[in-house]
Amino acid sequence: MPELRKDPILGRWIIISKERGKRPTDFIIDKIPSKGGFCPLCSGNEKTTPAEVLRYSDRSHTANAPGWSLRVVPNKYPALVIEGGLDKEGEGLYDKMNGIGAHEVIIESPRHGDSFVYLPLARMKQVFFAFRDRLIDLAHDPRFRYVMIFKNQGKAAGASLEHSHSQLVALPILPRMIVSELQGSLTYYKYKERCIFCDIIRQERRDAVRVVCENDMFIVIAPFAPRSPFEMWVLPRQHSADYITMSDHQFEMLTQIFSECLRRLDKCVPNVPYNFVLHTAPLRSKPLEHFHWHFEIAPKLTQIAGFEWGSGFYINPTPPEDAAKYLREVTI
Amino acid sequence: MPELRKDPILGRWIIISKERGKRPTDFIIDKIPSKGGFCPLCSGNEKTTPAEVLRYSDRSHTANAPGWSLRVVPNKYPALVIEGGLDKEGEGLYDKMNGIGAHEVIIESPRHGDSFVYLPLARMKQVFFAFRDRLIDLAHDPRFRYVMIFKNQGKAAGASLEHSHSQLVALPILPRMIVSELQGSLTYYKYKERCIFCDIIRQERRDAVRVVCENDMFIVIAPFAPRSPFEMWVLPRQHSADYITMSDHQFEMLTQIFSECLRRLDKCVPNVPYNFVLHTAPLRSKPLEHFHWHFEIAPKLTQIAGFEWGSGFYINPTPPEDAAKYLREVTI
Repeated sequence: MPELRKDPILGRWIIISKERGKRPTDFIIDKIPSKGGFCPLCSGNEKTTPAEVLRYSDRSHTANAPGWSLRVVPNKYPALVIEGGLDKEGEGLYDKMNGIGAHEVIIESPRHGDSFVYLPLARMKQVFFAFRDRLIDLAHDPRFRYVMIFKNQGKAAGASLEHSHSQLVALPILPRMIVSELQGSLTYYKYKERCIFCDIIRQERRDAVRVVCENDMFIVIAPFAPRSPFEMWVLPRQHSADYITMSDHQFEMLTQIFSECLRRLDKCVPNVPYNFVLHTAPLRSKPLEHFHWHFEIAPKLTQIAGFEWGSGFYINPTPPEDAAKYLREVTI
Repeated sequence: MPELRKDPILGRWIIISKERGKRPTDFIIDKIPSKGGFCPLCSGNEKTTPAEVLRYSDRSHTANAPGWSLRVVPNKYPALVIEGGLDKEGEGLYDKMNGIGAHEVIIESPRHGDSFVYLPLARMKQVFFAFRDRLIDLAHDPRFRYVMIFKNQGKAAGASLEHSHSQLVALPILPRMIVSELQGSLTYYKYKERCIFCDIIRQERRDAVRVVCENDMFIVIAPFAPRSPFEMWVLPRQHSADYITMSDHQFEMLTQIFSECLRRLDKCVPNVPYNFVLHTAPLRSKPLEHFHWHFEIAPKLTQIAGFEWGSGFYINPTPPEDAAKYLREVTI
């Protein structure tokens, strides 16, 4: 059973995934994902993954067999496990709890060579649908308070498999980053009675220097204080705290803008490794006036070294005004 | 002039170091520091660095010439600059200020091949002395509120030069990590009237499962909730909030224990890249009852990917109890 442990000074939680436990000699730095070898995410190899929890069928409705366009399966090496109770326990001045949660892999295409950036829009839209379907399903488990959805693209961004996929982790506690965003935006709301994200969108549209692209429903900006060069945020233009409330038209518009900004990024910095994460309301929230769901996309172009790690300060060599200009002006 | 910018939601500051500005095509991922080429940190090449701000002489007292055992020089490509005023400014709902600060390099040896881990104790002690001397000197500049001292060892930990060195960044604001530690430990102090770090040391010495090594004055533990495998904290056993108050005997004991725990780490995971950071009281603090200075040492064995980046949660495959056992039992 993995364990959740809290740093007593900072209140920061970490996951000790003992199942993945390694001896010192097991650490191989710069391990490269095998090319051309066996891929458990490819069509035809369905039996080598845990049984699917979601399937969008293409040609066949037989579970765990070919004929799908998208599958979601539990991670074979999960950071958290689904079975068990949420036992909380003290250990002297320390706090810990059972590592209960879900860890799933969203397989974005049956084909090994497909790249998320260049998926046809109808196919990419299925990925965003799958995020919603899993959020709705996992919200039924009262042990979970948050589902963190993210993508690691490229080895430098932490991907251990080449085949295009994203991941989700359902957590029994709110992640610190979400707590901070909820608190920060609530403080602003109490003072101004406005959503800070809505105010940011208004100011960015007026200034027009950090806007990368927009459509009817969504805007992509280079944030004012980005942690990494070419960081982008994708926000719904209308206030909304919860990703799962989107209409079909909104899903279409999200797909269009997401595809566009990733293609712009790929044209500026070809094959750049990147991460994206979805920040949405905690599971089973009532509608929140102060919080605004969004995606954060971070290309992996700088290294997190001692300074960033020890201070929480980031050094970024590229002003977002420059990044937005490059991204806007590149031909796609 | 670099710029400090604050994320309006999280209050997180970042440094935009425009001087280092890059065009998209300038990003070369996996750039490897040159081996065997020219090294500006080697003895004989003193003229290629900015003029030294501290020198411990070995054979000659001539500034910026050979004959030294340790030099501190301003970083040639500083993230922050020393000249100018602390102009604070709003930009709509955003906040920014001039990127005033100091960025210095502590050159730990005149010889290119020397490794910090295996420096003779008298030489390593000079490095810890230099940290103190720079802290005392930079505290005279009223614009600075904190000096972050850190080391990046190895390419994977962010080192861009092979020659053994550490760095410091003097900042006009308190880094978020230090603010969080100060707040977290103050909350505990208000409740218990005891320093939380002192309580941790008591509990760890009693439990004796996460202690790596100790001497008269210092203890090294694998923290209860470590972010990375084999993370270690080095703490003075007696309460002290400020690094600069150490006696000569304490410097000797710190050097002994620091050298020992790094050698243990190097025997467990040979040539592991790592970062260390010093967490000490803000400049010009009165003595703090609730805060306890310490070093945090983090081997770079796991990757910070989308999940950690988006959630602030860390996944660690190695329980600290196992890490401490390996570190204790290895032959050095």
